[in-house]
Amino acid sequence: MQTFEATSIRYINGYLELLDQRLLPQQVCWLPCRDVGILIEMIQRLQVRGAPLIGLSAVMLLATLAEQGWSAVKLAEAAEQLRAARPTAVNLMNNLDAMLAVLPHGVPAIVSRAEALFAEDRKLCDQMSEAGAALLPANARVLTHCNTGGLATAGGGTAVGVIRQAYHLGKLKQVWVGETRPLLQGGRLTSWEMAQAKIPYQLITDSMAAWLMRLGEVDAVLVGADRIAANGDFANKIGTYGLAVSAHYHKIPFYVVAPQTTLDPRCPDGQQIPIETRAADEVRGVSCSGGSVIWAPADARVFNPAFDVTPASLVTAWVLDTGAYDLACLSDYVSTLE
Amino acid sequence: MQTFEATSIRYINGYLELLDQRLLPQQVCWLPCRDVGILIEMIQRLQVRGAPLIGLSAVMLLATLAEQGWSAVKLAEAAEQLRAARPTAVNLMNNLDAMLAVLPHGVPAIVSRAEALFAEDRKLCDQMSEAGAALLPANARVLTHCNTGGLATAGGGTAVGVIRQAYHLGKLKQVWVGETRPLLQGGRLTSWEMAQAKIPYQLITDSMAAWLMRLGEVDAVLVGADRIAANGDFANKIGTYGLAVSAHYHKIPFYVVAPQTTLDPRCPDGQQIPIETRAADEVRGVSCSGGSVIWAPADARVFNPAFDVTPASLVTAWVLDTGAYDLACLSDYVSTLE
Repeated sequence: MQTFEATSIRYINGYLELLDQRLLPQQVCWLPCRDVGILIEMIQRLQVRGAPLIGLSAVMLLATLAEQGWSAVKLAEAAEQLRAARPTAVNLMNNLDAMLAVLPHGVPAIVSRAEALFAEDRKLCDQMSEAGAALLPANARVLTHCNTGGLATAGGGTAVGVIRQAYHLGKLKQVWVGETRPLLQGGRLTSWEMAQAKIPYQLITDSMAAWLMRLGEVDAVLVGADRIAANGDFANKIGTYGLAVSAHYHKIPFYVVAPQTTLDPRCPDGQQIPIETRAADEVRGVSCSGGSVIWAPADARVFNPAFDVTPASLVTAWVLDTGAYDLACLSDYVSTLE
Repeated sequence: MQTFEATSIRYINGYLELLDQRLLPQQVCWLPCRDVGILIEMIQRLQVRGAPLIGLSAVMLLATLAEQGWSAVKLAEAAEQLRAARPTAVNLMNNLDAMLAVLPHGVPAIVSRAEALFAEDRKLCDQMSEAGAALLPANARVLTHCNTGGLATAGGGTAVGVIRQAYHLGKLKQVWVGETRPLLQGGRLTSWEMAQAKIPYQLITDSMAAWLMRLGEVDAVLVGADRIAANGDFANKIGTYGLAVSAHYHKIPFYVVAPQTTLDPRCPDGQQIPIETRAADEVRGVSCSGGSVIWAPADARVFNPAFDVTPASLVTAWVLDTGAYDLACLSDYVSTLE
């Protein structure tokens, strides 16, 4: 397989490595990824995160295992184990299906498919970024949630890719970064990415977003998606739905940015998207490279869904790599996929 | 002055003491309060918090200083210093005005006014609790924000007082406690109070509230207020406004619970309420008795308003100690105060 290096995944000297996103921004630490069990653990611990990156890390691991001589049967078993690691993300499912299709054709075909999926993700980011940036006004003040940047993809990101491109075009005034409790992907990762790219940003707690909208400080909301159903409903990081409700109330455009691989035409609507619930201690406190603190009573009962589902009615446009769609156009587009 | 003991303020053996709310729930630690500068520091560090409690702590401190022989002139100076400690909270202003009025009448009058204000706060809590609990349906699932409980008042609390009373009446199924970033008064304090009172609760991040409403899991939202303007707009902990927008969208009743001393007839609307902004490190990380962590880049720019303002149009009813009011009734009531 060819050597490559992206923000959070690289293949150098025959080793696949993934950036440990739980340690950012304090530490930049690359973890070797040579084994299915290890990758599943990394996904579940959110060391590896972001729907496109999760899919690509699984693809790249299968390709390296194929090069090491694993049989097609063993690779297919590995793919099934990986599939269960993150049920909400459709990219993982799609990427694994693409790999399963080439398993019978031998190592060169497997490696070549993996490389193509990787290159495609970069191209998709570029295309989404252009389509999204075109929608923003001059001097845009954009609010985003979670991390949808270079850390989450092989390229410049989905929603953050749009932000990067808008900044590149001189259209961006500043980014409001929602910290994204409980796991703080905004506070830890997006703010780090913004600082690296020298894009002006301000960090807020998630509860401040509606108030900023009320103050007239937000021109658009840009978020990613873990899965988009055929009717336009989509799952994304918990907190996205509340932002969509607030944006709707304040008549602020709300854009979902995702590669068309995130669109699942077999999923009729948001109610069919499974929502992962996670450990109570994530809400009782915080655990990251800076340290761990539990601030709530140790036995506090907790509700901790990792995702929520935003109905299509609250979305202004879906920005895919194939262009930006309103609801009518998205319906037409979905019908061509079926 | 008579000995007394409430959840977070007590006067025993001639010493005024306040419970350090930053150390809860890990440690229960009482701090001596013998000096104006110390009380101002405690208020600004949020060791003492909750609009009614802040007002009462200032009142009680002035009474103890009067007993120690401070002159009326010196007490009046102290009152002016205390007034500046928390500009958003009108209770502090009202309580200080009540004390200023009796300063010329000597120590017994000062002490007696302080005791009366304290007793009145308890009575107000009881009256609000009854008026609010009457509005809730059977088996109510109530969402609340920040801490408005016994920790914040001399009695059972404002919004939490209603919750306590509803539980006492067998009308409450469960409480959703929003953690209330950045300072986590919900995660640290309200969950502790709920556990102490054995009231069933689940802790959530603030960003989960809208999703819970979508899931049909919330029958009412109950919040406190730091100041209610004459037109019904009110200031409360940051995040309250977003909850009001979400409740409105989901057609869920949204109740503000506060003593009528929180109502400021001289403040025509929410735009006139000053909003305190606080230190950036509160959003970059967390600091509490369990430990301190900074997870964001150390130089991250931050927006950190301590409060937001919710317009009257999003409020179903204002629950005061004098009863529950819709907007028309509130306007009539305010006109009687002017």
